[in-house]
Amino acid sequence: MSVVAALQVRVEWGDCDPAEIVFYPNYFRWFDAAAHNLFKSVDCSLAELFKRYGVVGLPLIEAHATFKQPTRFGDELAIESRVASWERKVFRLRHTVLNRGEVSVEGLETRAWCIRHPDDPARLRAAPIPEEVVARFEA
Amino acid sequence: MSVVAALQVRVEWGDCDPAEIVFYPNYFRWFDAAAHNLFKSVDCSLAELFKRYGVVGLPLIEAHATFKQPTRFGDELAIESRVASWERKVFRLRHTVLNRGEVSVEGLETRAWCIRHPDDPARLRAAPIPEEVVARFEA
Amino acid sequence: MSVVAALQVRVEWGDCDPAEIVFYPNYFRWFDAAAHNLFKSVDCSLAELFKRYGVVGLPLIEAHATFKQPTRFGDELAIESRVASWERKVFRLRHTVLNRGEVSVEGLETRAWCIRHPDDPARLRAAPIPEEVVARFEA
Amino acid sequence: MSVVAALQVRVEWGDCDPAEIVFYPNYFRWFDAAAHNLFKSVDCSLAELFKRYGVVGLPLIEAHATFKQPTRFGDELAIESRVASWERKVFRLRHTVLNRGEVSVEGLETRAWCIRHPDDPARLRAAPIPEEVVARFEA
Repeated sequence: MSVVAALQVRVEWGDCDPAEIVFYPNYFRWFDAAAHNLFKSVDCSLAELFKRYGVVGLPLIEAHATFKQPTRFGDELAIESRVASWERKVFRLRHTVLNRGEVSVEGLETRAWCIRHPDDPARLRAAPIPEEVVARFEA
Repeated sequence: MSVVAALQVRVEWGDCDPAEIVFYPNYFRWFDAAAHNLFKSVDCSLAELFKRYGVVGLPLIEAHATFKQPTRFGDELAIESRVASWERKVFRLRHTVLNRGEVSVEGLETRAWCIRHPDDPARLRAAPIPEEVVARFEA
Repeated sequence: MSVVAALQVRVEWGDCDPAEIVFYPNYFRWFDAAAHNLFKSVDCSLAELFKRYGVVGLPLIEAHATFKQPTRFGDELAIESRVASWERKVFRLRHTVLNRGEVSVEGLETRAWCIRHPDDPARLRAAPIPEEVVARFEA
Repeated sequence: MSVVAALQVRVEWGDCDPAEIVFYPNYFRWFDAAAHNLFKSVDCSLAELFKRYGVVGLPLIEAHATFKQPTRFGDELAIESRVASWERKVFRLRHTVLNRGEVSVEGLETRAWCIRHPDDPARLRAAPIPEEVVARFEA
């Protein structure tokens, strides 16, 4: 059973557009926060990953969302996040946005495990994900 | 041949994160602007659609992006947008983010054609897309 | 003694810029959220104000911030907000951003009490602030 | 006579809130972009300042805005920016947001000229502004 982390999000006035619903790019902003929250929940914050493995980021390869129900100013959302799959240098996260117990949005992020390029520190290079990191997500 | 509209975007300092690349939700913010720009380019701004058809929004059903190359502060991007397909009440837009002629990001938005619900003006309802609107996008 | 409300804010990765500190417009985003939170704390959410008084917004007249210490990804901020002064149709809010007990940023917002213009519902008009609203902020 | 740079800004759908006007923190986002644009206009982009003087940022000391007229989706704004005053390590910028020739918002930013602290590269330290930089802003 894989670890699930939940991030609480208040929908603020400024998150909503003239249609009085959340402006959709904000869901991806929250997915990113939820991804960091998931890693932090298993003691693998980005600061920790940098210290232990030289990881300088978990950049996006792909992002996807399906919008089922709009959310509005004042709504209290829970974003449940888990790892959907691990590949050698890449992994996928699944985010479920819940509003009063119902699914509002489903998200999917594909991210790479990146360290600094040995020949050029300004560039990133994907690297194999350590098994001990994967293990932390399996309860 | 379908209409293509191009939106110019400067990558600003505040669009970038501590990894010194664009924080990815901003691409969706630009896709949304590019979608409005595409409709405006065929004289169908949201204001016009409201006046002519009672359209109160083109809410998202699905959004997707594939990230190929990071973009950075100072980059001048061109976002080329076109309709990928029309269904009865729903349509898909394709956005291509170009940075110095190379594709950085590819995006896909599925949106619904929405009017106010006749029984409850606070709700939206998908409606058939008028053929004359579709026709405007075919050159 | 005037009511003080505290809003908890996590600094997210995407709130920070390439200098690895919070991109400053985000503080104003949080001030706005803190203003709504303050009104809600005395049972005067914007939804309530609309129902009771026809208030359609508390638009800004002036905003000001003094930045004392930068804040960074992972910081847990508390924003303490209170009414600094009431005038007839206008009021001032003071926001103090605390990071581990120290003041990081101080903010000031001047906002107007606005209802719809009787002759043109698309326009707003400042109106006198009801005394019972003012009274709720005095403990 | 001091240099004035103008930045063109389209107000996008996502810049506006449920009151159908620009959500005010966005003006500060545009002031920041306008500040960078002003420096770039005299060949002092942040990248240039880093190369020539080791400047790693122009962090905010203070920010202020006065809101005179709301702006809306579709408005084409011009932000006129200039240096209002130079001090030894600090300078002030004035930004004027024009909408169809009328002033919508006036902004003021106080920023510091910052290099890396010699004893600790993770910290910034204010440094004297080179006279040749000041000279570039005087036509």
